[in-house]
Amino acid sequence: MELLEQKIMNEGIILDDEVLKVDSFLNHQIDPFLMVEIGKEFARRFQGERITKILTIESSGIAPAVMTALQLKVPVIFARKQKSLTLKKDIYVEKVYSFTKQAMNEITVSKQFLSPEDRVLIIDDFMARGEASLGLCRLVEGASAHVVGVGIVIEKSFQEGIRKVKEAGYRVESLARIASLKNRQVQFLKDKEVIF
Amino acid sequence: MELLEQKIMNEGIILDDEVLKVDSFLNHQIDPFLMVEIGKEFARRFQGERITKILTIESSGIAPAVMTALQLKVPVIFARKQKSLTLKKDIYVEKVYSFTKQAMNEITVSKQFLSPEDRVLIIDDFMARGEASLGLCRLVEGASAHVVGVGIVIEKSFQEGIRKVKEAGYRVESLARIASLKNRQVQFLKDKEVIF
Repeated sequence: MELLEQKIMNEGIILDDEVLKVDSFLNHQIDPFLMVEIGKEFARRFQGERITKILTIESSGIAPAVMTALQLKVPVIFARKQKSLTLKKDIYVEKVYSFTKQAMNEITVSKQFLSPEDRVLIIDDFMARGEASLGLCRLVEGASAHVVGVGIVIEKSFQEGIRKVKEAGYRVESLARIASLKNRQVQFLKDKEVIF
Repeated sequence: MELLEQKIMNEGIILDDEVLKVDSFLNHQIDPFLMVEIGKEFARRFQGERITKILTIESSGIAPAVMTALQLKVPVIFARKQKSLTLKKDIYVEKVYSFTKQAMNEITVSKQFLSPEDRVLIIDDFMARGEASLGLCRLVEGASAHVVGVGIVIEKSFQEGIRKVKEAGYRVESLARIASLKNRQVQFLKDKEVIF
């Protein structure tokens, strides 16, 4: 997605060979117009899939997920990263390891919002090791619902997540795919290029 | 806001005299079309205020804030509830007590996204004790920026937050104002009605 790649080039901050910060438009400050375009692009790629729900995870997934939901005319559910006092029972729970925070999180979704008839599109901001995406897939399948696919805003294609999620049998659509962050430069994969 | 009040009446779950769950459209599952209408209504109420940024707090504030930002054509910043590994220095920090989670949180905003020229609209999902709103106001003022006002989706008018935030001198616009949750019934305040 051209507009997104430009934004990454112009505003992304490369901390090291593995970490790209996009706090100016996605992970801390949010550009609402970019989110609209991201929503349209996910909707275009997954059109015809008869999606009934979008599932994302707090917090950075929410904005792109809501804009996609608006296009597809379906609700969004955001998985929580810890149990809250008002959501104790009747939840699906999966453990997900966060390499960024070096901690095991429990991600949860209330059982009332996922049913076996649901065809679910998973949306997340980044794919790196694939832990969050696979955890969200397990949540959906724990509800006997169907995972239509995974939509990722920025895929770090040089890490193992994309390979793991594809090998698990899921369709992944990533709007920007980063081949490398070496030498403080962002290299994108082109249309059909793959690393793994 | 009529549409929001209807949604609360139809889908809100009253847990006790103080707790209303709206997990089906705001706090866990999100209705994207309702968010669009909420964004339009906040934009209408704060039009002419020359707002330059919207500040909210993860996670439930993000969807209404992004939709308001789209109408006002400005970016959103979401404050984080704890420090992440990639956001260590150069942040504004305020302590906020969460009665729901019975814990003290640190809320943080990166210094690069708030400047003294900013005119900031604060958006949040609920106002109860007012702790989050006042913490967000302090964050803005810590950056020497100006708080234009506070936009709240659901105000629990029977709790002390609204009085505290108004007494601190801030304009508050709440789209649904709840007078009482007693006897498992939602009572709304009408146009000019106030409790405090």
